[in-house]
Amino acid sequence: MSFENREDCIFCKIIKEEIPCHKIYENNFVLAFLDVNPQFKGHTLVIPKKHFENIFDCEDKYLEEVIKAIKLISNHYKDVLGCSGVNILNASGKDAEQSVYHLHFHIVPRFSTDDFSFWPTTNYKKEDLEKLTKLITLVK
Amino acid sequence: MSFENREDCIFCKIIKEEIPCHKIYENNFVLAFLDVNPQFKGHTLVIPKKHFENIFDCEDKYLEEVIKAIKLISNHYKDVLGCSGVNILNASGKDAEQSVYHLHFHIVPRFSTDDFSFWPTTNYKKEDLEKLTKLITLVK
Repeated sequence: MSFENREDCIFCKIIKEEIPCHKIYENNFVLAFLDVNPQFKGHTLVIPKKHFENIFDCEDKYLEEVIKAIKLISNHYKDVLGCSGVNILNASGKDAEQSVYHLHFHIVPRFSTDDFSFWPTTNYKKEDLEKLTKLITLVK
Repeated sequence: MSFENREDCIFCKIIKEEIPCHKIYENNFVLAFLDVNPQFKGHTLVIPKKHFENIFDCEDKYLEEVIKAIKLISNHYKDVLGCSGVNILNASGKDAEQSVYHLHFHIVPRFSTDDFSFWPTTNYKKEDLEKLTKLITLVK
């Protein structure tokens, strides 16, 4: 699948096995491996085997395969890691704190002993949601 | 679809229109609406129209439709909100900070002016990833 990868992409190099990884799961469309700089126990990345930058440009078929792999791995981690839950996170775009520009979803196994929260504190002031809806809805 | 909904689920009540929402998008499988207590501008929830608790039990077909709707809405928000990126977050399970037990993905539009981070600080000490991989890999 080399024509579908990018020469300068570190995740494409992992897919092509030019760089090693701690592989958790793979099929024809998807690869999952441990984050090399884990911030959480079992911190896992799930990526499409074809290069897409992020959620904005990923082909539907690959998105479908990625989300099904996330479900499979999440259930598996309940058994083998003993986590009670997971957070699933994607960052698409620089301002969303995306680091590597090959679509990836983080799976973060969660435990009752965790001492952190996934919810940032913001200073967003709730606005008129009726007005906002009119501006942005796709429902006509 | 009443047989597929739960009487005591607030999101099922929204699907059945027993409770109003600020609707952004819908099709036969998926509903998207603004979070009623938004923590971010354009804070949106995407849910399957059939009741599933979270990522662990959601049928594949609904997962596929949810992720495709997330892509559609994310691209749309670039245009109508002017965000440069999005974070996509799911919490599955109490210890993952799940609040409503009907599967939902958050879409959080992100802007260059944002003053928050989606990455919690943890005290996780990196362990031997080789050992961990052997324990949890699905690749034989």
